[in-house]
Amino acid sequence: MQVDRRSGLEIIDQGECMALLEQHVLGRIAVVEGGAPIIFPVNYAMIGHRVVVLTAPGAKVDAVHRSVCFEVDDYDRAGRSGWSVVVRGQLFEALPNEVARWEAAGLLPKPWAEGEKGHVLGIEPATVSGRRIHPTSLFAEPS
Amino acid sequence: MQVDRRSGLEIIDQGECMALLEQHVLGRIAVVEGGAPIIFPVNYAMIGHRVVVLTAPGAKVDAVHRSVCFEVDDYDRAGRSGWSVVVRGQLFEALPNEVARWEAAGLLPKPWAEGEKGHVLGIEPATVSGRRIHPTSLFAEPS
Repeated sequence: MQVDRRSGLEIIDQGECMALLEQHVLGRIAVVEGGAPIIFPVNYAMIGHRVVVLTAPGAKVDAVHRSVCFEVDDYDRAGRSGWSVVVRGQLFEALPNEVARWEAAGLLPKPWAEGEKGHVLGIEPATVSGRRIHPTSLFAEPS
Repeated sequence: MQVDRRSGLEIIDQGECMALLEQHVLGRIAVVEGGAPIIFPVNYAMIGHRVVVLTAPGAKVDAVHRSVCFEVDDYDRAGRSGWSVVVRGQLFEALPNEVARWEAAGLLPKPWAEGEKGHVLGIEPATVSGRRIHPTSLFAEPS
């Protein structure tokens, strides 16, 4: 197990990061708008190695061709443990033929919220990193 | 109940946003680093109306005096329901006497991760907004 010396957290390897991304459906995307970051919770699906979301016109569509960050996590408050995976990369808008192909294959995310979501955006990952925090006891010094 | 017409989501009022922020201990902060956003999961505590986190030198400390975004949410995947609260504002570093006072009063967050966390940062909220998504059935048209 690889450990991040600075934080004491387990480093999750790339393969497991991708597996965790594939197992989940709800994450958060951060974009920069007017120099300030803004976070949106999103339903997503992994299509190959890309994070894909459906959205209406707005800050996310405005961020196409720019760098964004995507995060998924799962924490157990009682156990003070959990993990997170962070994807950084450029946002792109999928082409109509790509969208049609993904739709036909049932690959697109299924949004929980209502409303017109005419844009299919994807993140082309530049970096994928994951960290896991174990219950404190696991790393505690023997007493 | 106020509803965001664009998304069909319930708008959570300011009082309930603050209550939700106070009930939770794990959120995510987004900062801008070199023009790109980056998301960090963080343990936090509300001290008054401010979101307070402990951290080591790095991207979060570098973002002091700049705009940041903080998000907390809770979703039920099976029920396709949940809520999120987003705080946007400027990041500040707490002064030593402020930190000492908060520490004495037991107000500081209790980090789950190990490692030196010598900086106490706070977000001075400029905006706080919340959205709740109900199981689809609630908003479904009568059949």
